[in-house]
Amino acid sequence: MNNFVYDVPVKVYFGENQLSNLGNELIKYGKKVLLTYGGGSIKKIGLYDKIVNELEKFGLELFELSGIEPNPRIESVREGAKICKEQNIDVLLAVGGGSTIDATKYIAAGACVDFDPWDFFSKWAPIEKALPIVTILTLSAAGSEMDSGGVISNLETKDKIGRLSPYLLPKVSFLDPTLTYTVSPYQTACGSVDMMAHIMEVYFNIEKDFYMLDCFMEGMMKTIIKYTPIAMKEPENYEARANLMWTSSWAINGFVNGGKKQEWSCHPMEHELSAIYDITHGLGLALLIPRWLEYCLDETTVSKYYQFGVNVFDIDKNLEQMEVAKESIKRLSKFFFNTLGLDSTFTKVGIKQEDFEIMAQKACSNGTIKGFKTLNKEDIIKIFEMCL
Amino acid sequence: MNNFVYDVPVKVYFGENQLSNLGNELIKYGKKVLLTYGGGSIKKIGLYDKIVNELEKFGLELFELSGIEPNPRIESVREGAKICKEQNIDVLLAVGGGSTIDATKYIAAGACVDFDPWDFFSKWAPIEKALPIVTILTLSAAGSEMDSGGVISNLETKDKIGRLSPYLLPKVSFLDPTLTYTVSPYQTACGSVDMMAHIMEVYFNIEKDFYMLDCFMEGMMKTIIKYTPIAMKEPENYEARANLMWTSSWAINGFVNGGKKQEWSCHPMEHELSAIYDITHGLGLALLIPRWLEYCLDETTVSKYYQFGVNVFDIDKNLEQMEVAKESIKRLSKFFFNTLGLDSTFTKVGIKQEDFEIMAQKACSNGTIKGFKTLNKEDIIKIFEMCL
Repeated sequence: MNNFVYDVPVKVYFGENQLSNLGNELIKYGKKVLLTYGGGSIKKIGLYDKIVNELEKFGLELFELSGIEPNPRIESVREGAKICKEQNIDVLLAVGGGSTIDATKYIAAGACVDFDPWDFFSKWAPIEKALPIVTILTLSAAGSEMDSGGVISNLETKDKIGRLSPYLLPKVSFLDPTLTYTVSPYQTACGSVDMMAHIMEVYFNIEKDFYMLDCFMEGMMKTIIKYTPIAMKEPENYEARANLMWTSSWAINGFVNGGKKQEWSCHPMEHELSAIYDITHGLGLALLIPRWLEYCLDETTVSKYYQFGVNVFDIDKNLEQMEVAKESIKRLSKFFFNTLGLDSTFTKVGIKQEDFEIMAQKACSNGTIKGFKTLNKEDIIKIFEMCL
Repeated sequence: MNNFVYDVPVKVYFGENQLSNLGNELIKYGKKVLLTYGGGSIKKIGLYDKIVNELEKFGLELFELSGIEPNPRIESVREGAKICKEQNIDVLLAVGGGSTIDATKYIAAGACVDFDPWDFFSKWAPIEKALPIVTILTLSAAGSEMDSGGVISNLETKDKIGRLSPYLLPKVSFLDPTLTYTVSPYQTACGSVDMMAHIMEVYFNIEKDFYMLDCFMEGMMKTIIKYTPIAMKEPENYEARANLMWTSSWAINGFVNGGKKQEWSCHPMEHELSAIYDITHGLGLALLIPRWLEYCLDETTVSKYYQFGVNVFDIDKNLEQMEVAKESIKRLSKFFFNTLGLDSTFTKVGIKQEDFEIMAQKACSNGTIKGFKTLNKEDIIKIFEMCL
């Protein structure tokens, strides 16, 4: 067990109609607010008007950046940072899912530097400061509302790169499950796979486990498996939406790591898929995870699969370890491809073999991914082939 | 499901040899540090010298209040507050278990007011400010290192009263599992019962459950059941001590509540036992919990016991609900009184029937305890009788 520092000072307002606290929280940081969001859905569901109303009550001055893309692009970051500098913005209000919040984090950091924000990714330029960020979450998935990371795409260079910094942690996040009622079944499914992946990348790991945290991770995976189909069938089921929403935050805010040294496997592979094909992140992960698990299964790793199968899928604990392990992968595939109805092969979503080489190369830019099993370029190509 | 605010901005250094960060953290708040601790054990294990050494490196000025009692008393709080005022203390460093940290919280608040600190409890005087607190934990039990509450005893008035305030939340806590290596098997057991009680008071509740948080609570209970006997037999088992320590913090930092309106049942009853008999808090709780569960079990509550029995004690889920419920209470009693070896009756620890009336009266000072089941004075007396 390794030492660690737990430091997640994000204040969360959880539940319906908590926006009466929004003005109060924003005004702590100043008067000029840059509201960032994606498409027009926040106007359709009436959220935009509520926000404007709350800001007016406190005499806050509103600026806007809309149109932030899924797999958010560096162009949006540049544009946001420019507005912040020109208008002397005091605080950022990100309204949306992980894409909007991720972009807003780098807008907040970009506002405090003189160089191009892409340097944060291409040159690993230091992040030493950022404007304060408040978020209103409308999609349960990325966990960006309570973590310190973000992933930005550059279509020009075909890069999609993630990075962490404590300065990017939101100050306050509003988690209202009713704001996810309009999320489509497909996006709900993809969001849940993303959460599942955040947990599994930590859970499936060769380092010594922290039992209590493994229990928490198993609890979150059970929560996702229980409530995703309910939320897909009954979009306005509060209990389902609330459980998924709170899981999205805790899956990736650092709590479950407990000092585990880790390098993630499926995320870097998936980032290459969506960098080239611009597919939904969760769909890419669903395609990769079961094949990655299959590829990594052997006598040295089987005990973890056994634990997963018994504790998450309630598979008979008296069966042979290897039998439980294989069954657990089957159940997971069934969950992704049958219960959630996601496409099950690269072929179905149009990912072509001719790109495997370059995607595999980029996924292990340091030579190997040192995750649950160390993967080199050839390993990654084999996993891609299993997805065909 | 009710709305809630999650706001636990405590920074935690978890693991061995993290004290090199102590000076750094303290000096953020000023130069004058009041070190508070209980008996001499922190000197015996060499911790005192390490602390003094770290403070010297940063030129911090050290003041001391030692001798804080188990079930800490208002006299210690008064004395500490006096030192803070006279010496213009900037920051408090509490080193110990829940008792020392609880007392330190009210010293921190008492230092900022002109009235007697007992007024916080007897008159519910407002807590509007407190000096900053840093803690070094040496006992896994109360969870005071990451929560906003504390319980203080007044032997004169035979009162033991707890209270919460966000101002009392520590800024930083150091959780080093090796500092609990010298905790005796008996104190280890009592600490674990305390944690178990913190979870069970929330878990056994008639309000609608938050599934994900129920999973977390079940995980923590399984952690306590798995690791307490190991820590008792192998006091220097790092994994066991680490799991118990991190569980102590998360059992009661507010996270698992998830908006549940709640009134605790066993804690107010136990406070009356230890107010009169000065027994260890965890022992009192172990005596009460199984009888309280037995008393509250009926057709309206049985499903929660079933969930507990299946998920925490792995009892066969195909049995009748009521059978699982009764078996779960048996398993819990066996854990407390056999595995942990705690005294199983009031008679054994010297608690007398003649005090039941007054203790029951005080435990439900508002007329009833509105917990899992509403309990009036007569109910409480019956539970006490079951403990004989």
